[in-house]
Amino acid sequence: MSDSQASAKFEWPIRVYIEDTDAGGIVYHARYLHFMERARTEWVRSCGVGLRAGLAENISYVVQRLSVHYAVPAVLDDEISVTAEPVAFGRVWMDFRQQVVRARDGKTLCEANVRVACIALDSGRPRRLPENMRELLALHSQHLQKDNQTKHEITQE
Amino acid sequence: MSDSQASAKFEWPIRVYIEDTDAGGIVYHARYLHFMERARTEWVRSCGVGLRAGLAENISYVVQRLSVHYAVPAVLDDEISVTAEPVAFGRVWMDFRQQVVRARDGKTLCEANVRVACIALDSGRPRRLPENMRELLALHSQHLQKDNQTKHEITQE
Amino acid sequence: MSDSQASAKFEWPIRVYIEDTDAGGIVYHARYLHFMERARTEWVRSCGVGLRAGLAENISYVVQRLSVHYAVPAVLDDEISVTAEPVAFGRVWMDFRQQVVRARDGKTLCEANVRVACIALDSGRPRRLPENMRELLALHSQHLQKDNQTKHEITQE
Amino acid sequence: MSDSQASAKFEWPIRVYIEDTDAGGIVYHARYLHFMERARTEWVRSCGVGLRAGLAENISYVVQRLSVHYAVPAVLDDEISVTAEPVAFGRVWMDFRQQVVRARDGKTLCEANVRVACIALDSGRPRRLPENMRELLALHSQHLQKDNQTKHEITQE
Repeated sequence: MSDSQASAKFEWPIRVYIEDTDAGGIVYHARYLHFMERARTEWVRSCGVGLRAGLAENISYVVQRLSVHYAVPAVLDDEISVTAEPVAFGRVWMDFRQQVVRARDGKTLCEANVRVACIALDSGRPRRLPENMRELLALHSQHLQKDNQTKHEITQE
Repeated sequence: MSDSQASAKFEWPIRVYIEDTDAGGIVYHARYLHFMERARTEWVRSCGVGLRAGLAENISYVVQRLSVHYAVPAVLDDEISVTAEPVAFGRVWMDFRQQVVRARDGKTLCEANVRVACIALDSGRPRRLPENMRELLALHSQHLQKDNQTKHEITQE
Repeated sequence: MSDSQASAKFEWPIRVYIEDTDAGGIVYHARYLHFMERARTEWVRSCGVGLRAGLAENISYVVQRLSVHYAVPAVLDDEISVTAEPVAFGRVWMDFRQQVVRARDGKTLCEANVRVACIALDSGRPRRLPENMRELLALHSQHLQKDNQTKHEITQE
Repeated sequence: MSDSQASAKFEWPIRVYIEDTDAGGIVYHARYLHFMERARTEWVRSCGVGLRAGLAENISYVVQRLSVHYAVPAVLDDEISVTAEPVAFGRVWMDFRQQVVRARDGKTLCEANVRVACIALDSGRPRRLPENMRELLALHSQHLQKDNQTKHEITQE
């Protein structure tokens, strides 16, 4: 599941706070979805696209499908790094592969495949990805082609 | 994806509050994981097994793997029903199929397959499912056998 | 801080789930604000007023001020009862006194005073409470008069 | 509400994500408590004290009392700065004054007074603040003396 090409992979550092943990002493499983969305959001922002601007133009993004494999739990005070890597896209959707990695030892804590769809904010209906997002994804297309071959790894296990 | 055998399927009613929604006007995608865990917890409780009692005996449960398909979003004030149906189990794990259904029209909003593992609270290591949980799962075994044949529906789509 | 008049006091039962707890083994302090909002929402709903209907008419409610005193923590699996009692209102705001009580022994875990303001959803500006809400509050006015005399108890301690 | 002495005031930058917002289009009111705890945690960490190390020594911290005044809501994509300023302490507690400020224009969005108590993790009983924390607070004592005179500003309004 490692990836030798660092090129298209965006990383976002996150600190684990008490709010993220539960009485089992580890990060609550649903919190990783928050972490992963933060990484996707920051990837988009790093390319100059803001989400609020999208809302103002009736564009919203929703998660349509995801699969997560939890390997090792994060705990309070951990520094983690969350990757967001676009691996495919269509007219109205984008697929991301994401990993949560522990900073101190590079251990992969959690991996996910996430499909995000573009919708009209008012109607909730699917709509074409906006041009700036398509360009962004096209920029990564070389990597995408390579990645497409392996993208179903997690979901098929 | 419908299921004609109501027998083993536990249902838990949940109301959508403002805390569950986001600026897109719909329920935040990670919240469904909370809803589904509530339903699993209530299924266990309905069988006389409490989670806190488990913690006191060094038994904890963690989500090991999940896949979710989001079809239609829930919105503020919606009444939803969340199912929790054990579909398979091993020495240290249980698989659930779960659905989030909108009460007013029976529409399936979201479906998931969730694998929950039993661990020792102190070490985090996998441990055998406690006897009361195994008995509970065995009670559902007839249904389990039937369900096992179709359980990979969602993850393979 | 107890209240001998049960009349105006709405109660809403809530179960504590693992999602509500943190690594300290107790309910995360911010979660009580969720619980208290659920109770206010259900009080309003019990009077026939829905929040989504409000949003559709450009009416939204925001918390403007609150003070909370945490006495005893709730823990996993606890059944709690959350009260919502309107104690005063003005042209654009309502004041609630709220308590979180543990079901098994009636112990008060947490108390709060919460001021909720009515705003226009689009502009965020204060707006007059809608007529149905004013009528609702007026119905409680006899109790309100009595309560007004003691409503600053918590904030002044 | 401004503060001319920057000396003791710790600031922590936070970005508003979709997870923080609600269907009213603004940050959900309870989320500010998360933000404020992150700032307190980072203040403690900046002084070399980690929370997990505390848990390992049976030391935990709980919010005992808080009052919040919400002035202007934060929205999606906002950059905010959250301050944490110790203003008083006793044998088992610390009082913080905190502000949430919008980065782009310095507007104060939200202010709070928060009392945090030190407890034994196992029993939940109050316990003396650990020595490293007391030293930390003593370092700020000159500021504390000055601040003590005005610390009840918010709660008394």
